[in-house]
This record gives sequence, structure tokens and C-alpha cells, in this order.
Amino acid sequence: MEIDFQKAGGFVPAIIQDKLTGDVLMLGFMNLEAFAQTQRTGEVVFFSRSRNKLWKKGETSGHVLKVLEMRVDCDADALLVRVEPVGPGVCHEGYRSCFFREMDAQGGARIVAERTFAPEKVYAKEKSQ
Amino acid sequence: MEIDFQKAGGFVPAIIQDKLTGDVLMLGFMNLEAFAQTQRTGEVVFFSRSRNKLWKKGETSGHVLKVLEMRVDCDADALLVRVEPVGPGVCHEGYRSCFFREMDAQGGARIVAERTFAPEKVYAKEKSQ
Repeated sequence: MEIDFQKAGGFVPAIIQDKLTGDVLMLGFMNLEAFAQTQRTGEVVFFSRSRNKLWKKGETSGHVLKVLEMRVDCDADALLVRVEPVGPGVCHEGYRSCFFREMDAQGGARIVAERTFAPEKVYAKEKSQ
Repeated sequence: MEIDFQKAGGFVPAIIQDKLTGDVLMLGFMNLEAFAQTQRTGEVVFFSRSRNKLWKKGETSGHVLKVLEMRVDCDADALLVRVEPVGPGVCHEGYRSCFFREMDAQGGARIVAERTFAPEKVYAKEKSQ
């Protein structure tokens, strides 16, 4: 099955979901190489658009994402990666999920999750998501 | 809270999750106007990149997505929209979720969900996702 990397300029969005809890943890992008490495190693690799290079999730923090299941959508232009997350959280701000803020209709946002780790201890000097 | 629409050329990916079951149903993109309409109406509106216009989910099928909760990620460049889906499914191929195929390590894919409706009956002439 061919994934359509061209539709969005060489990348597809990859939704990361905790398979056990169902929580959506984060969204990243993969190019063909990141996808291939993810498939081969069984741990999630993204392509960082801001740093313009492959980005193994957990390379700094140790919080890798073990791939349990990989799904593709009807148009083959989005991925759903169901994982077992290693460690207390995926977010560089110290939360289990990057989606820790809920928005209201007035454009405000409030934090609706508890911090699960201290990011300054996990990410020494380099900020990593 | 400002959503960063500029990072990906005016759009942010919006993950649609069934709040009750936790299932990820689909991924779409929103521009500022789609986001504002979604907020205002309480039903999901995307921007269709292929048709280059706003796209109210369910406009053809009646399978609208009622917004129960909207979350934003740490970098404010991705949305998680938790919904109550109206109708038997969101996918134009007749499934509850667009992520109805699981990939294997050899690049193959197999269908892992049951069809929940007959798309040819729901989508008269116009194909809509």
C-alpha cells in the first residue's frame, strides 16, 4: 500500500495514540525515511520540519514510543500510530500528552492535565519535544 | 490563545476523536475561518485542500461531528477535537473511522473494521469524505 507523501509536500501527519488508554498523545510528521525507520525499528521516528532532519522521539529524554499498531486512512495521506509510550510523558512541557490544554469558545485555554514529570530534569540543555 | 496557522501554510491538522469510545475517526485540516466556524457552530468544519474551500463535515451525508471538547497542543500547531459523531460513520468508504486499515511491516495493509453503512446510498452523486 502506497502512502501519499506528495499531497503535503513530502510529509504525512502521524497521530500518536496510547493504545492502552486511547489517549491521543501528540501529532508529528513523517517523510518516507522517517516512516521507513519507524517500520524497521518499531519505535517512532518523525521528521522535524523546524530542524529539517529526522527526529527519533525520545532520543534526548529516553521517552521512546514503541509501535504496537500502525493504521493508514482511506486516502492514504494520514497515519495513526498506536503505541506503548515509555516513560511518564511525551510532551517537552512535562505532560503525558501534548494536548493538555482545552480551549473555550472565547479563544482562551486552560490546562486540564497534571504534570507527570519535570522537563528541566529530563531535557538537560537541548529542548526536545 | 493564538493558534499557529502559519507554520504549515495557513492550516493546522485537526484530529477528530470520538470522545465516548476514544477512537480516532479522521484527520482534517482547518484554516482560521474553518476553525472559527467550528467554534461558533459547534460542528466540525474543515478546509478541503483538494477542493480549496471550506468543507462542513456531513454536509452531504448528514453525518456531522458535534464538538464536545477542543484541545490544542503545546506548540499550538495541532488540534484535537473530541466529538460526538452523528450517524454510523465518518468515512466515505462506509466505515466508522477513516483509519480502518492496519499496515504490516512489509508495506501491506488489511482491513480491520466492519463496514457500518453503504456509502453509495449516503453519498448520492457527490463523493464526500
